[in-house]
Amino acid sequence: MIAYLNGKFLDQTRAVVSVFDRGFLYGDGLFETIRIFGGRPFRWDDHWTRLKAGAEFLKIPLPFGREKLRAAADGLALRNRMPDSILRLALSRGPGARGYSPATAGPPTLAMTLHKAPAIDPKKPIQWKLIVSSIRLRPNDPLARFKTANKLPQILARAEADALGADEALLANTNGFAAEGTAANLFWIEGDAVCTPPISAGILPGVTRRTVREICQTLKIRVREKNIRLTELSKTDGIFLTLTSLGIAVVTALDGTCLRQSRLTDRIASAYVDLLLQGAPGQRA
Amino acid sequence: MIAYLNGKFLDQTRAVVSVFDRGFLYGDGLFETIRIFGGRPFRWDDHWTRLKAGAEFLKIPLPFGREKLRAAADGLALRNRMPDSILRLALSRGPGARGYSPATAGPPTLAMTLHKAPAIDPKKPIQWKLIVSSIRLRPNDPLARFKTANKLPQILARAEADALGADEALLANTNGFAAEGTAANLFWIEGDAVCTPPISAGILPGVTRRTVREICQTLKIRVREKNIRLTELSKTDGIFLTLTSLGIAVVTALDGTCLRQSRLTDRIASAYVDLLLQGAPGQRA
Repeated sequence: MIAYLNGKFLDQTRAVVSVFDRGFLYGDGLFETIRIFGGRPFRWDDHWTRLKAGAEFLKIPLPFGREKLRAAADGLALRNRMPDSILRLALSRGPGARGYSPATAGPPTLAMTLHKAPAIDPKKPIQWKLIVSSIRLRPNDPLARFKTANKLPQILARAEADALGADEALLANTNGFAAEGTAANLFWIEGDAVCTPPISAGILPGVTRRTVREICQTLKIRVREKNIRLTELSKTDGIFLTLTSLGIAVVTALDGTCLRQSRLTDRIASAYVDLLLQGAPGQRA
Repeated sequence: MIAYLNGKFLDQTRAVVSVFDRGFLYGDGLFETIRIFGGRPFRWDDHWTRLKAGAEFLKIPLPFGREKLRAAADGLALRNRMPDSILRLALSRGPGARGYSPATAGPPTLAMTLHKAPAIDPKKPIQWKLIVSSIRLRPNDPLARFKTANKLPQILARAEADALGADEALLANTNGFAAEGTAANLFWIEGDAVCTPPISAGILPGVTRRTVREICQTLKIRVREKNIRLTELSKTDGIFLTLTSLGIAVVTALDGTCLRQSRLTDRIASAYVDLLLQGAPGQRA
């Protein structure tokens, strides 16, 4: 496998960073997970925009512009002959002197690696069992708006899901409202409306969350941003999660309680697959 | 300079980790900053105990036991001929498959590097100007009790201090109480008592915080754990910070307001230097 590191393609076993890299030491960085389909990164602009906003917030200079980075992502898929895959991009502030001050840090480290993607089968929606994590997120956390490399709460929550044989963990915030999965945004159905928590719940503005909202607009499905208590969630007309790597995952059970399923979810999931295939010429015969 | 990585001593330019290391990707790890004096790590047992507790909490297996790690720390100081220095130990969960699940991760990465230490002059106490950061900590944050590699809030706060020409930033918690510095615990003086926030404020149980409490016990100085509002802090009889690398830093100004100075701080700082010198035979002629 070929990886990309600081402007160069190299065998991934040689893709290494210094133990002085602040990404390694303090999680001082950002990342993006991007679906590659038909040899192209899906929703590149959305990922780029979020990466750029995060880098500006953390004051990490981006080593490359939008076009150069896009060309590198395309090149990585081509070199690995993996037109259908998942790309992970990691940006850190780079090496620095001891201590938290970013003053002497840099140059930044930018790494990209490719990973296997799950098969897309429009007839077989992804079905997930969810548990509620004991970890709580902080509402209005300013850092939650970016995909930072500080992911210990998510890791601990995911380990709870693993231990219970679930596919993903749902995190509530300290106000008791449902927030998001460890690696996925939350949606639920109320009658003819699709609902999702507001960013102020302390969640990541996910790229697929945004795509789903666009799909709903096209399909004339009403979307409402609202907070919901954990206890109310299993009484709704259906729950689904959105994440870049898989698109839409239908939630079949929450903490062991079987959930209602909605046709709205199927329509949105189907439209999502169409959109993914659309952007990839030659993929649909 | 020689570094230590996963059981081996090597030139620090060769001390590298994979871009698949979860420390680099997600801040999935812990660290310790340890004062080396007279060739020995000061308060080794306290640092080891905290590292072990953190590793148990995060379920990261420690690759070495207490004695072997201690021997490696001694060996690092000896090889670099730096008997008076600062050691940084970083432990990460190691490389893993894409995603937050720690199930397939490992083996863990353990790195140690040595850094220059500031000179110790008992007659010249360290004097710091402090600013209050806009970043807020979460009270009772379960992760705050360990020295994790998720340090973005501290990095952002420290950057605020840098921008204002201050030496360190003080963080309050979301309840409005003073919590800690980015890399230091907070103490203040009220009459004949030394006060410090409780761990429930969302702070790290610092090794030097503990040492100072022991010193106070020996000197028969009363110590009180209590919460204090930011607005009350500058009206106290003095403020100081504790941190492994420097010991005690006297705070002379908070957000530009000059602070009262207490003799109690001088007594504690002096006793701290004595304790450091005590543990290092041959250092005091």
